[in-house]
Amino acid sequence: MADFSINILGCGSALPTTRHLATSQVVDLRDKLYMIDCGEGTQVQMRNMRVRFGRLAHIFISHLHGDHCFGLPGLISTLGMLGRTGELVVHGPKEVETYLRPVMDLFCRGMEFDVRFNTVDTRSHSLVMEDRSLSVWSIPLKHRIPTCGYLFAEKPKEAHIIREMTDFYQVPVRCMKDIKQGQDYVTPEGEVIPNARLTRPAATPKRYAFCSDTAYNRSIIPIIEGVDLLYHEATFAECDLARAKETFHSTARQAAEIARDAQVKRLVIGHYSARYDDLTDLHREAEAVFPGTILGNEGMVIPV
Amino acid sequence: MADFSINILGCGSALPTTRHLATSQVVDLRDKLYMIDCGEGTQVQMRNMRVRFGRLAHIFISHLHGDHCFGLPGLISTLGMLGRTGELVVHGPKEVETYLRPVMDLFCRGMEFDVRFNTVDTRSHSLVMEDRSLSVWSIPLKHRIPTCGYLFAEKPKEAHIIREMTDFYQVPVRCMKDIKQGQDYVTPEGEVIPNARLTRPAATPKRYAFCSDTAYNRSIIPIIEGVDLLYHEATFAECDLARAKETFHSTARQAAEIARDAQVKRLVIGHYSARYDDLTDLHREAEAVFPGTILGNEGMVIPV
Repeated sequence: MADFSINILGCGSALPTTRHLATSQVVDLRDKLYMIDCGEGTQVQMRNMRVRFGRLAHIFISHLHGDHCFGLPGLISTLGMLGRTGELVVHGPKEVETYLRPVMDLFCRGMEFDVRFNTVDTRSHSLVMEDRSLSVWSIPLKHRIPTCGYLFAEKPKEAHIIREMTDFYQVPVRCMKDIKQGQDYVTPEGEVIPNARLTRPAATPKRYAFCSDTAYNRSIIPIIEGVDLLYHEATFAECDLARAKETFHSTARQAAEIARDAQVKRLVIGHYSARYDDLTDLHREAEAVFPGTILGNEGMVIPV
Repeated sequence: MADFSINILGCGSALPTTRHLATSQVVDLRDKLYMIDCGEGTQVQMRNMRVRFGRLAHIFISHLHGDHCFGLPGLISTLGMLGRTGELVVHGPKEVETYLRPVMDLFCRGMEFDVRFNTVDTRSHSLVMEDRSLSVWSIPLKHRIPTCGYLFAEKPKEAHIIREMTDFYQVPVRCMKDIKQGQDYVTPEGEVIPNARLTRPAATPKRYAFCSDTAYNRSIIPIIEGVDLLYHEATFAECDLARAKETFHSTARQAAEIARDAQVKRLVIGHYSARYDDLTDLHREAEAVFPGTILGNEGMVIPV
């Protein structure tokens, strides 16, 4: 198991089909779970994919269209019935609270945990949340209503101790923490042992960007530049470009252009319109611009 | 195909599992569809079971627990996207409107059809709706919040014309309607042809009763007496009788006792607690009291 991965619970668009469900993903960073969007049916998909409800601490909502948030009341009720006590934080545009508060007042009385709303300014690229291992940033998107994507940036990890070397120099346990964070070791005799001789560098921190829903929008390129994995919506095929413009969505080719120009390492597409029974064209159109494009699908677990 | 049947979209209880979904059924009477309850995921189940969205005219909500109504916003949005123009009537306790109005104000602006709320008094057995072919009555149930079941009573159908006889007597077309409704025919010569010689009686009208969620409640027996099909909740097995009482639910055995004492023709049980991986015990306990009990399951289509 990769220690940083995304689970695709749903990657359909507004109309659910028998092939694709409404949008939801779970980012798994060393067993701590962060949900992005929560369309209808998300809690059932969590069961199907064996995503553990108890590990979920934060939910990030991109925008207030039903296919991105109608699963919230059911998920929150279920967390209550499962005996959750720890706070749940829901990040998103301010309308998320306008929607959820009255529903929770009707259905979630007596629940033993708090739901805290953190309003995200969808027009700015700013820090939304950070904890020990991760920081999450908003990505302003261009859609029919206030919408933002989210950038998940792993924090630098501590270096790995080379046990043979610290044993050889008889480094006391109390010095280990500093050494992991890059300090040299000075022996009781005054000899300086350079940090590089005692540690192996930690893996480079990884970054994941979620961008859905959005029109073709080149202003996100500097924000997502070089990310290890980009999920970009690809609602339409090139033949429906006019419809994409009209509805503030992207084509698969446009998603790939953003990925190519932002020099991301890998691209996964999703949010497919219900009009396509077969996604071969969308995949081919993206591949022509960004070879290796991953065609997102329900149930996929993708390492970042 | 039977011309009066029920489609079980979901027959789980509050916690959805990988085996059972939240409550929803569609009653199909000669291709006109009536939904009972609409838990999360109902619209996806409609797709899976090929239930036609356009045929749906009325939705009946039993009570305001999430597993019986969290699918409404998604279903209503989808009907809007599919271009519906005809009114949709949502029948249920008054809290249904309290819940849905603000959600629709946020998500359903510009929709081209009206949603009309019809408040049902859950404490009385009264007529909720009728159209040409059907009347629907409330069934007061005993649950933690105001709750009612629904009795679907087919209206008497017209008798079938015996074509050979009407040809023989040269009955004019304009008289057919009266004959179907039971009148005799008088020939131009004044001869009275008794109706029984011109028609075959129509099939006896059928009745279906939906009773979920409810504690063991013998006061419903006179209302559902002799129905062709009864769906009765059976959340718990007999070993969890105490829990059933506490939560105002029934055991499978209690469901069967109600069915037996109301002399219904057939019984289907559902609304199973998530605690049972295997429903053999529930089925056996019901069968011991009411032989032939049908163990409800997702995807079942049962003729009334």
